[in-house]
Amino acid sequence: MTRSFLHALMNPTSIATAGAGNNVMKMGTMHLLSILKDGYSGKVYPIHPNDEIVLGQKAYKSPLDLPEAPELALFILPSNQLLPVFENFGKRGTKYAIVITAGFRETGSEGRVLEKKLVDIADKYGMRFIGPNCMGIINSEMSLNTTVVPLQSGPGLLGFASQSGTYVTQPLTYLAKKGIRFSKALSVGNQANVNIIDALEYLGEDEQTKAISLYIEALMDVERFLEVARKITPHKPVLAQYIGGSEAGARAGLSHTGSMAGPDHLYDGLFRQAGIIRVHSVEDLYGFGWALATQPLLKGNRMGIVTNSGGPGSAIANTCEAGGFTVPAFSEKLQKQIKPLMPAHAPAGNPVDITFAMDIDVLAHTIPDLVMKSGEVDGVVLHGAMSSGFMKVLSKNLKMVLDPATVDDVVKLAESRDLTETVRLPFENDIPMVISSFFDNDDHYIKNYIENNIPVFDVPEKAARAMGTLLEYKKIRERRTGAGSAAVKPSAEAREIIGKAVSQGRLSLDEYEAKRLLASYGIPVSREFLIAGETELAEIGKKLTFPVAVKVCHHEIMHKTERGLVYLGIQDNTGVLEAFRKIRAEAGDTVPVLVSEMVPGKREFLAGILRQKDFGTWTAFGVGGIFTEALNDAVYRLSPLSVEEAREMIGDIRHTSFLGDFRKMSPVNLDSLASVLQRLSMIPLIHPEIREIDINPIIICGSEPVVVDSLIVLGN
Amino acid sequence: MTRSFLHALMNPTSIATAGAGNNVMKMGTMHLLSILKDGYSGKVYPIHPNDEIVLGQKAYKSPLDLPEAPELALFILPSNQLLPVFENFGKRGTKYAIVITAGFRETGSEGRVLEKKLVDIADKYGMRFIGPNCMGIINSEMSLNTTVVPLQSGPGLLGFASQSGTYVTQPLTYLAKKGIRFSKALSVGNQANVNIIDALEYLGEDEQTKAISLYIEALMDVERFLEVARKITPHKPVLAQYIGGSEAGARAGLSHTGSMAGPDHLYDGLFRQAGIIRVHSVEDLYGFGWALATQPLLKGNRMGIVTNSGGPGSAIANTCEAGGFTVPAFSEKLQKQIKPLMPAHAPAGNPVDITFAMDIDVLAHTIPDLVMKSGEVDGVVLHGAMSSGFMKVLSKNLKMVLDPATVDDVVKLAESRDLTETVRLPFENDIPMVISSFFDNDDHYIKNYIENNIPVFDVPEKAARAMGTLLEYKKIRERRTGAGSAAVKPSAEAREIIGKAVSQGRLSLDEYEAKRLLASYGIPVSREFLIAGETELAEIGKKLTFPVAVKVCHHEIMHKTERGLVYLGIQDNTGVLEAFRKIRAEAGDTVPVLVSEMVPGKREFLAGILRQKDFGTWTAFGVGGIFTEALNDAVYRLSPLSVEEAREMIGDIRHTSFLGDFRKMSPVNLDSLASVLQRLSMIPLIHPEIREIDINPIIICGSEPVVVDSLIVLGN
Repeated sequence: MTRSFLHALMNPTSIATAGAGNNVMKMGTMHLLSILKDGYSGKVYPIHPNDEIVLGQKAYKSPLDLPEAPELALFILPSNQLLPVFENFGKRGTKYAIVITAGFRETGSEGRVLEKKLVDIADKYGMRFIGPNCMGIINSEMSLNTTVVPLQSGPGLLGFASQSGTYVTQPLTYLAKKGIRFSKALSVGNQANVNIIDALEYLGEDEQTKAISLYIEALMDVERFLEVARKITPHKPVLAQYIGGSEAGARAGLSHTGSMAGPDHLYDGLFRQAGIIRVHSVEDLYGFGWALATQPLLKGNRMGIVTNSGGPGSAIANTCEAGGFTVPAFSEKLQKQIKPLMPAHAPAGNPVDITFAMDIDVLAHTIPDLVMKSGEVDGVVLHGAMSSGFMKVLSKNLKMVLDPATVDDVVKLAESRDLTETVRLPFENDIPMVISSFFDNDDHYIKNYIENNIPVFDVPEKAARAMGTLLEYKKIRERRTGAGSAAVKPSAEAREIIGKAVSQGRLSLDEYEAKRLLASYGIPVSREFLIAGETELAEIGKKLTFPVAVKVCHHEIMHKTERGLVYLGIQDNTGVLEAFRKIRAEAGDTVPVLVSEMVPGKREFLAGILRQKDFGTWTAFGVGGIFTEALNDAVYRLSPLSVEEAREMIGDIRHTSFLGDFRKMSPVNLDSLASVLQRLSMIPLIHPEIREIDINPIIICGSEPVVVDSLIVLGN
Repeated sequence: MTRSFLHALMNPTSIATAGAGNNVMKMGTMHLLSILKDGYSGKVYPIHPNDEIVLGQKAYKSPLDLPEAPELALFILPSNQLLPVFENFGKRGTKYAIVITAGFRETGSEGRVLEKKLVDIADKYGMRFIGPNCMGIINSEMSLNTTVVPLQSGPGLLGFASQSGTYVTQPLTYLAKKGIRFSKALSVGNQANVNIIDALEYLGEDEQTKAISLYIEALMDVERFLEVARKITPHKPVLAQYIGGSEAGARAGLSHTGSMAGPDHLYDGLFRQAGIIRVHSVEDLYGFGWALATQPLLKGNRMGIVTNSGGPGSAIANTCEAGGFTVPAFSEKLQKQIKPLMPAHAPAGNPVDITFAMDIDVLAHTIPDLVMKSGEVDGVVLHGAMSSGFMKVLSKNLKMVLDPATVDDVVKLAESRDLTETVRLPFENDIPMVISSFFDNDDHYIKNYIENNIPVFDVPEKAARAMGTLLEYKKIRERRTGAGSAAVKPSAEAREIIGKAVSQGRLSLDEYEAKRLLASYGIPVSREFLIAGETELAEIGKKLTFPVAVKVCHHEIMHKTERGLVYLGIQDNTGVLEAFRKIRAEAGDTVPVLVSEMVPGKREFLAGILRQKDFGTWTAFGVGGIFTEALNDAVYRLSPLSVEEAREMIGDIRHTSFLGDFRKMSPVNLDSLASVLQRLSMIPLIHPEIREIDINPIIICGSEPVVVDSLIVLGN
């Protein structure tokens, strides 16, 4: 496997800084301080215009003076001083850089020019750099921290890449208290040279990283993001939080189907397609990421719950069930093993509630071990393990009635307990476990869990939701996504139809052309005939199965129904002739008229293609017909799709009941429907002239989908 | 105002304990220790069979030996020793008790008998008691704590009542760290004598309590709950977490409409009706309750956001918008005031992002004050205020390059800053504010916020969601609920119809009767005629507007459509006669046949009444017709309803677009629809013989609702 270039950037044997001095109240100095004092053992070369020693290190006036080309250069220089120094590093032979400095693209047009110059210098010298306007990186494996906040814990398992610098540094204290430890963290800033997709790719390869969390504010290259993520997610979990812009600003014009979906829905679809689990708060990004990074894989959906109080037990059970778990009643055999360990009337059936018992070892070790070994559950959520933390709280009052030294001894005794075996339970049994506790690392149990990669959540519901994330990942691991997309052969007929329209300078195809184009790709459409004149009617009449619809067919005529240019449910040839005449009378003597056999069926769906400027070509599927807007139930995927991806997409609509034996109708043939979507998804890639395809409705006739109306828009 | 009896129980001038001794490792002793050492200043009388002194207090062998009748007795005695002591307190004249002891109803039939005896003794002596099987109470106003965990903070503003004992005591440390302080907390246990509704009523009256949080596992008397809550919520916010049983167990048989709704949906409806905000985690129950208890009322939905980093600012803006807020761009005037305070390119438009600035006073005071005084926002969310906490984290590295004493001085200087004015901002400006911070009470700012009733949340999204809860409460305060229910006069015709069916021993009304009954209450139904024989047909035919439906009408005949006993869309008298004959041929020579005018209209809703055993009589409303199951969109309210409540209920369905100008139809007349629901809701109260009414569909004809089919079930 070739390694990402970021491996080299993240593992430098030597680092130079530009912009760090001896004034510790300056940002630049704080960055250097982290590098020097957090445990990095490589060489460090401060560049400083005046001082000969910076924070105890020999300083150099220019990169050109350095005894070697440092592998990594860190820039905290003001933006107006940056470029010449950056270029000198290029000259000196440095290949990797991190530009913390702000004041580039994010500040407007001047900044954009400056950023372009930075990129050009990097290109000139073959340099790769993170930033500008970022917070730097953390590589916990080598205790390298280039951010302002010092490291507060050792190496961890969670990879983190962020479009907000804050999130790799400001919460380090918060994270340390929860025991959440990064493997590698990257703040990508303006992404002038290295972007979050590069970071994702690198974290996917990195062996220390067992799960990846991404904080995303905007993606540039969705196709590459999908390609990279697809390779990672089957073997390494990826979580993402996406924060869209304001509702007003972020909503893109998705044309016809688009009134109902902003880009947020596209991100939903993209993440689903990529096998990425989406979360909606940074707390979950960290916490659930940590659970995924640390715990054994979940092998089923049966949850065991062990608690010392009923409320949290109920909350965990309830939240687990809402998340797709069962909380199965334990077998009599297992209950017989558990009951002797508990007070007489305490429930042992799952949840196991040992009530207010003081023997925490039973709660935290003996019972979970029995439950894990029973073969009756696939995971365990434990609430209530606490010892010294609880005793310290009691101490205040106890010291008023007992010898204070005795009270302290009790706390010390609790803190001396060896929990080595207890914190091995999930790993020895190969069954994931998460902890719910109102106590934090003040408590001996919680401290041990935290230090030994067992995630602790501060309320019961969160612990249960973390398990839910493990279940989501189980589904992602097990899903079939298909080997890319099945081959769809370019259609000569489609090329001809488009060519004709383009040569006429048209912006869209007419309905007949659109359906012929779809049909040429094997998508079933309603049977129909274009009528040029009355003389053809008799001949066509013989071929028709009634009832039929008669409608005008011209790419420029809108509002057909309102103008009386559509006649439905016509039962015979006479009716067709009447309708034909009325349409010509209204819309013109030579206007083409379409006769379509009506497709019987009460279920209507929609499908579509939308090419978004710089944001991919998307395939849509949803509930269509008269419910399009009212149910607002459409899902999206990046084109092209495999048949398996199309199947998964179909199952993502909210109203899946319409796909089953709705009102005693035959269930929809999902293979046929998936095939329609898969074929549809290929069309815009074969025909870049197509900007948008809007199919609504697809009527389900018996079990089979038939396209009844379609609009195809051309252009870029 | 008469005070709840709980006022006396919660404010005792003297307390006796039974079951507490000198062994501090026993539960009972820990309860007494809390009473003695947490600051309670009343008299304390331990009852003990052997010891003369318990925890330093003179002990008594029996309640009968006490020098006075203690106002409150606390029982931690084992359940098998409890009754005689309890009775002796009764004899001694004690009127209030808390029974911590477990081993009653929750353990099965023996326990149930024991609990009954306890209740009988209390009744005999006119005693009121909380429990059994509870954790006791906290009255922070008098530093009275009868739970096992010591108080860790002073008096607060949040009232808390819980059906889980854990939640009033185990998280006291967790809560203290977040600055969340109870006014009063009550663990109600088995509710043998005092239930959570009594607790709610008491907290509603209690002046120290500014908001109320309820943890509910099951309600017994939903009518009283609603009555009590309705009085409180217009002037004091109430939050509730309801944890239903397992999905399998909790689902009630809601008959026809019921397949789609478990009791969880009834609780949703009940809380909405009562003006209670439902939350789904105990974290929100505490945290959002604290925000509601402490902050000024929110007067609009314009949110101002002040931050020192972009990620959290975006997350807050996004979450606020999702919660119904706008995040308006600040006026030029306001931006001109803010910009000079910030770095050159930092955004001042809302969110205000001062970026990485070291002058926290600008972030935490000057800018929020300007924003609050601008009149441009109704609330402020602030992220990033931090001083000593951040410096302490930096200290580790700083001490390696600076004199450690200097570093400590910097921290001390930060901690000496007077924040009196800063923590007054929301109260002086009468504008609510919540804080987002990754730092906790280690930090001087956070400590000051916590101690001064400004809520702090550990991640940005939670702070924004807390504001969302304030917005929900604004809507509750402002809603119109109507003065009880409008008068609906009992209908003699309805009494006659029911009387006849009952006298015939029938379990249901036939369709014709059901609709006549509804019509007699002013509910519009389709126009229809019952045909006893062919001779009537000609006469009836003259009155009909076609098309009509012809169907069998007999309360015992099911599966009418499948058996060919329903004919729709009949256009003339001949068709009616044919249908009539076919029905008689199939279903019997004398079977009644109904001719109903078909109601034109494409929107179909459902309504219904369901009497739940010991759980109220509910009115249902939802999307009906063929989409009943597929959309599963029904909402519930406790009967009877006011017209205003019915209006609110209608607006609670998910697919409200069906009520507007859906597909260019006329909007539904919501007054008419609300009137239907209001009248419907009264019927089961006037006619207790009715167990269930199922109306589906109500067709919207033009704008008006018309009942087209209905089933009325009798019985208890």
